[in-house]
Amino acid sequence: MAIELFNNGTHLCLMFDDLIDDENNAAVQANQFLIVDNGHGALLDPGGNMTYNGLLMAMHNYFPPKRLEYILASHADPDIIASINKWMIHADCRVVISKLWARFVPHFCSGSNAEGRIEAIPDEGMNLKLGESIIKAVPAHFMHSEGNFQFYDPISKILFTGDMGASIVHHGEADTPVEDFRAHIQHMEGFHRRYMISNKICRYWVNMVRQLDVEMIVPQHGRPFKGKKMVNEFLNWIEHLPCGVDLMTQDNYRLP
Amino acid sequence: MAIELFNNGTHLCLMFDDLIDDENNAAVQANQFLIVDNGHGALLDPGGNMTYNGLLMAMHNYFPPKRLEYILASHADPDIIASINKWMIHADCRVVISKLWARFVPHFCSGSNAEGRIEAIPDEGMNLKLGESIIKAVPAHFMHSEGNFQFYDPISKILFTGDMGASIVHHGEADTPVEDFRAHIQHMEGFHRRYMISNKICRYWVNMVRQLDVEMIVPQHGRPFKGKKMVNEFLNWIEHLPCGVDLMTQDNYRLP
Repeated sequence: MAIELFNNGTHLCLMFDDLIDDENNAAVQANQFLIVDNGHGALLDPGGNMTYNGLLMAMHNYFPPKRLEYILASHADPDIIASINKWMIHADCRVVISKLWARFVPHFCSGSNAEGRIEAIPDEGMNLKLGESIIKAVPAHFMHSEGNFQFYDPISKILFTGDMGASIVHHGEADTPVEDFRAHIQHMEGFHRRYMISNKICRYWVNMVRQLDVEMIVPQHGRPFKGKKMVNEFLNWIEHLPCGVDLMTQDNYRLP
Repeated sequence: MAIELFNNGTHLCLMFDDLIDDENNAAVQANQFLIVDNGHGALLDPGGNMTYNGLLMAMHNYFPPKRLEYILASHADPDIIASINKWMIHADCRVVISKLWARFVPHFCSGSNAEGRIEAIPDEGMNLKLGESIIKAVPAHFMHSEGNFQFYDPISKILFTGDMGASIVHHGEADTPVEDFRAHIQHMEGFHRRYMISNKICRYWVNMVRQLDVEMIVPQHGRPFKGKKMVNEFLNWIEHLPCGVDLMTQDNYRLP
C-alpha cells in the first residue's frame, strides 16, 4: 500500500512499506519512496529484486515509471538498489549515488546499462533539481556506509535518513509513526549499536540536522518519526549512543 | 585468465582478475576466486552480474559450476555478490556470509531462491569444512563492511582479505604480485584512508593476522602480496594508517 507522507497537489512524497515478503523472517523489511514534483519523479532507495515488480505496479497510480528521472540511492546495499538493472532497462533514469560507489553500481548491471547514467555525489553533498523543487543530498557518511547520503525535501520538510533511525518491525507496522519513543528503542537499539560506525560521527550528524527544519524523519526500515518533538527525541537518543567501532575490542578480532 | 595461486594436485586456489571490462573506467576491477579441495568447490566473492558469464566459463576447465558447494562472501557489496541470484539458480550451493547480512542477501534474489540456503557466520568467525580441508572465516568487521569476513586457507596459507590490501589498478596488472611495496602505496592509500573505518580496528586485525602462518595476502581488488616479507610490509603499513572516522570532522557534516 502506498502511504502519502505529503501531498499539496503539485508535490507528493509516497512511502511503500509492504512490498517485501518478511513472513518467514528471511528478508528484512524495507521502505521505498517516490517523490514527485510538478510531474517530475524520483525513486528513493527502490530496493532489491524482491520489490521491483510490486513497486512498479504500486507507483503506477501516481507516476508513470517510464518517465522516472532519478533513482536516488543512499548507498549501495542490496536492499537499497539491487533492482537497479531492471530500472535502468525500464526507464531512462539516472542513478544518483556517492562518488565512493559510482564505480561499484555497474556490478549490479548486465551489459552497459549503467554507462554514462551514474551521477556521483561529492562527499560534501549537493542540491539536486527535481521539477521546480530542490532535493538536498545531505552527508551521512559512516551511518552506516562509508559513502552515504540522506535526502532532504524542503517542501515536505521530510529527511529521508536511510539506515539512520531504522527499526526492525513487521511490514504491517512500518506505516505507523512512532508514538512512544521509549517503547520503540528496543526495535532500534541492536541495529544502531552494530551497524552505525561511531558515536563521534552520530554527534556530527545530529549537529548538522539540528540546523534543518525537519518535520519528519523517515528511515528506510520500519517506522517514521513525525513531528518536531519526536524528531528531537530521536536526535537526543542517537547523540548519546556508543556504537560500531566504539564497542569493538581485540576480543572481537580473534582467530576462530 | 585463471591464475593458479596454489595447486598441489588435490587442493587448488584460482584467481580470476580480468572478467570486468574496466577499459572506460566505469567499473572497478575485481578479483574472483575458486577453491577446490578433493573435488569439492567453493567460489569466493564471485562478483556482480558483469562477471557471471565470464566466471562460469572460466571455472569450467577446473570445476563443474553446477557442483559448487559454497559461495563464500566477505560482505554484501555489489562487486562481491550481486550475481548471487544467478548462482543460486545454476547450482545447489549455499551462501556463507556474516549474520549481519543474512537477511539482506535475499534482496539480490527474485522469488525464493535464497530460502534456507544462507549460512550466517557469527561475529567470532567459524571453521568451514570444504572437502577434506578447513576454510577459516576470520573476523574483519569494519574493514570496510560492519559484518565482514576474510577467508584463510591453511593448506595454501593464503589469506583472502577482501577489501583489505586492495589496490586500484587496471585488470592487466592485477595478476602480478607486488614487487616494490613503497611504489605500490600510491595505488592503495586513497582507498584505505576513505573506505577502511578506523586505525584502531586495523591494529586489532594486524595483531590477529600476525598469529597466522600467511604466505600470501590476496585482496579482492588489484595485486596480491606474496611471501612473508611482503605480507609483513603490508601489515606494518596498515597498522599505522589513520583512516575512515579518524579523519572525519564536523566539516564533513555540513548542509549543502
